[in-house]
Amino acid sequence: MGFREHLREVCERVEGAIACSLMGVDGIEVDTHLVESDDLDVKSLLVEYSGVLRSAREAAEVHQAGGVSEFAVSTERLTAVARLVSPEYFMVLALRPEGNQGKARFVLRVTAPKVRAEL
Amino acid sequence: MGFREHLREVCERVEGAIACSLMGVDGIEVDTHLVESDDLDVKSLLVEYSGVLRSAREAAEVHQAGGVSEFAVSTERLTAVARLVSPEYFMVLALRPEGNQGKARFVLRVTAPKVRAEL
Repeated sequence: MGFREHLREVCERVEGAIACSLMGVDGIEVDTHLVESDDLDVKSLLVEYSGVLRSAREAAEVHQAGGVSEFAVSTERLTAVARLVSPEYFMVLALRPEGNQGKARFVLRVTAPKVRAEL
Repeated sequence: MGFREHLREVCERVEGAIACSLMGVDGIEVDTHLVESDDLDVKSLLVEYSGVLRSAREAAEVHQAGGVSEFAVSTERLTAVARLVSPEYFMVLALRPEGNQGKARFVLRVTAPKVRAEL
């Protein structure tokens, strides 16, 4: 089962999913499964959020809070839930605001080790 | 009921709460209720996370995703859940990693309008 299959499966299991990406922490996209596309440029936004994840990681390191494992941002139009797969890669799921964020966190948590096994 | 009462109430209602702060988006702390203190400097970490919130807000604005309403970061030692109270202020709850993040989001959501009414 390749990366793309895992990304598709995550989208299928979470109500309100718009897209799921595997990305480098440096912001380089490895692969994305896109469920729907509207005028919002989801891919670019997720790339931008990788910068936010890096800032969170730096803040946590400075204060000895340990490595960042998970990260979420909700805006009026989209919720993004990210989970570290390895120190260098993360999966991020974009949801409609009314999507199920708890389910998103759960599905990413169980999928991350499967994706890590393929890196 | 002052700010501090609301912050204390949030901590009492959420299992695993360590501290709850009302902060300016500029990183200036208005008030904090601290449940427990260990070697981790929670207050400074939360100030640092306000910078992360600002980056998320900028990223979302650039991509027309709308204003950031909620934000969460989990590390090995601490989960922080933040909710905007107004465009200039947010509440942030620090939890132990095993704390109930869903409950944290719910309690912050219902408390935010009460705090906003006092700003």
